[in-house]
Amino acid sequence: MELPASEPVGGAQADLSFADAEARSERLEAGLRRDPAAHRVLTGDRPTGPLHLGHYFGTLQNRVRLQNLGVQLFVLVADYQTITDRDSPQSMPDDVDALVADYLAVGIDPERATIFAHSQVAALNQLFLPFLSLVSVAELNRNPTVKDETAAAGQTAMSGLMFTYPVHQAADILFCKGTAVPVGKDQLPHLEVARLIARRFNRRYSPERPYFPEPDALLSDAPVLLGTDGQKMSKSRSNSIALGATADETARLLSRAKTDSDRHITYDPVNRPDVSNLVLLAALCQDRKPEAVAEEIGDGGSAALKRLVTEAVNEYFRDIRARRAELAGDRGHLRQILLAGNERAREIADATLADVKRLMHTEYGDIH
Amino acid sequence: MELPASEPVGGAQADLSFADAEARSERLEAGLRRDPAAHRVLTGDRPTGPLHLGHYFGTLQNRVRLQNLGVQLFVLVADYQTITDRDSPQSMPDDVDALVADYLAVGIDPERATIFAHSQVAALNQLFLPFLSLVSVAELNRNPTVKDETAAAGQTAMSGLMFTYPVHQAADILFCKGTAVPVGKDQLPHLEVARLIARRFNRRYSPERPYFPEPDALLSDAPVLLGTDGQKMSKSRSNSIALGATADETARLLSRAKTDSDRHITYDPVNRPDVSNLVLLAALCQDRKPEAVAEEIGDGGSAALKRLVTEAVNEYFRDIRARRAELAGDRGHLRQILLAGNERAREIADATLADVKRLMHTEYGDIH
Repeated sequence: MELPASEPVGGAQADLSFADAEARSERLEAGLRRDPAAHRVLTGDRPTGPLHLGHYFGTLQNRVRLQNLGVQLFVLVADYQTITDRDSPQSMPDDVDALVADYLAVGIDPERATIFAHSQVAALNQLFLPFLSLVSVAELNRNPTVKDETAAAGQTAMSGLMFTYPVHQAADILFCKGTAVPVGKDQLPHLEVARLIARRFNRRYSPERPYFPEPDALLSDAPVLLGTDGQKMSKSRSNSIALGATADETARLLSRAKTDSDRHITYDPVNRPDVSNLVLLAALCQDRKPEAVAEEIGDGGSAALKRLVTEAVNEYFRDIRARRAELAGDRGHLRQILLAGNERAREIADATLADVKRLMHTEYGDIH
Repeated sequence: MELPASEPVGGAQADLSFADAEARSERLEAGLRRDPAAHRVLTGDRPTGPLHLGHYFGTLQNRVRLQNLGVQLFVLVADYQTITDRDSPQSMPDDVDALVADYLAVGIDPERATIFAHSQVAALNQLFLPFLSLVSVAELNRNPTVKDETAAAGQTAMSGLMFTYPVHQAADILFCKGTAVPVGKDQLPHLEVARLIARRFNRRYSPERPYFPEPDALLSDAPVLLGTDGQKMSKSRSNSIALGATADETARLLSRAKTDSDRHITYDPVNRPDVSNLVLLAALCQDRKPEAVAEEIGDGGSAALKRLVTEAVNEYFRDIRARRAELAGDRGHLRQILLAGNERAREIADATLADVKRLMHTEYGDIH
């Protein structure tokens, strides 16, 4: 079995090829604008808690933009990715409902986009097996996330599902023949696994006419929002403002946000990360330059800054939050959306799996 | 996530518990005779070529015996196990047909047993994912087969599917809630993985009432037949007599079989393995003690021995071969058998997966 060790999957090689990835991402963006209907974009989230403003400005806004360009958008509720490092909790159905509510509230349109859950698409999960046959253990070990986890906890604690999850992610992307995957730089090595699997599958089982497109990374240039404690905004820290937070909750959270003692407000992310983060948040909500926001506040100090950012957030998210509250009250509707998305994903996955079976000579239909 | 490193999976611990496994196997055999309908037995083969007499006396005969006892028999055409270390070949559908023909010819009855193929049961394959979340990479590394492969070829050449295949095998066994798995001693560590997964799943997701039975090994006491070259009979060496070989082919293969120069024939497997192997084959076909066969030949030498064993094989397999030839000429019928078995396996796997989804809180049905 041919598993060339020389093909770069991650690690140092990934850094070397980052410039290349950036150039490809720019060409991809141009292609998306030119012919959006030719593209399928796979994105998604683990259902581990409500999405927050970091998700909104980091990825959700971009997904809605892509959808509105006319791209075919697939949004994955990655429930099988949550069990890579924890048990599946009793709260899972509520977490899934919350995620679907977030998606709909921000403007993902189930008439145009497909919202679906891992666990509900058997044919997608079956693709994991032939794909696992196309990568070596050495290549899985080379994955930087696996390396980090090994360093942090040792392989004893790492589950087999965590170890193999770039391959499962390849199934997420390839089942719908995804062409574009919005990712951050740190996820490039995972996408390389999907590209590698597409290439190997094509070479072995469909050499005349490549079956899977090689998915490309759509690198994000979205600014990174910090949490109210100055750390990375994260669902697991309590430093984030949920999309669905009320205006009062938002005011309370922002009133506690870390700042500094200099009354003159500037936008200087390197030297004043906490203050600049609030400036940036206000600027994003008001679609202005951060420098203009800072200048407007001038010597008003943290109090004025917090007032302004609170107003900006509450103003920007008013409609989204109203929609979200309405949706959260109608769980039957949320489930219907998910059921319809699952059904659509199943149709696509079934068709892809049927092709894969045919190409791999594992099709044993009636031969009368 | 709880993944206790102290639970034995394989290696040295497996040897220590071999006596225990033997005792359990004897109790299991007694249970199978007492209440066969309460048991589900999972067996199967990789479709990599025609089955031979070693398979027949080693496992097939026992499967038919279990079926005739009244046990629910599942016979897996393990096509996804062939791709752990090679590409899926163009010959796969022919290989699968040949395997089904072998099964039917030896007396596996599709009215009572379920013959099905890995690649055709998506829900079985989906179970692989939650099961992978229940074992650690360290436990997978401890598997003796993985250790052997690593020693032989290095992990570079080992595919992700090979590394994880004990977990996929656990899905094969647990999808039908298998209670008994006929195995040789060398496969005990794999079965331990299935037992471990059943236990962990039950403890985490169904603590009140265990959902999966812990499958037990049914250890074989079948004698091991050697090939005509004195080596282990193997599909990949050309030293085996296929079930479907003609009488003439059998005569030709046996005429070339290795013997020794002592004209007095005895049954002495330790000192005269080649001669004793032929004596044993005749004895198995004639349902006699090998010693009695050897005594009958006495000073007749290899020529008489080969005549006798050739006659014995051709006599014993006459009806099986006639059935097999007839079946091989009706591929439409073979496919119908497999399609019906796949359908039956899918129904069972769908029901098991539905239960697993419910127990893991990944069920998002309509909630009106």
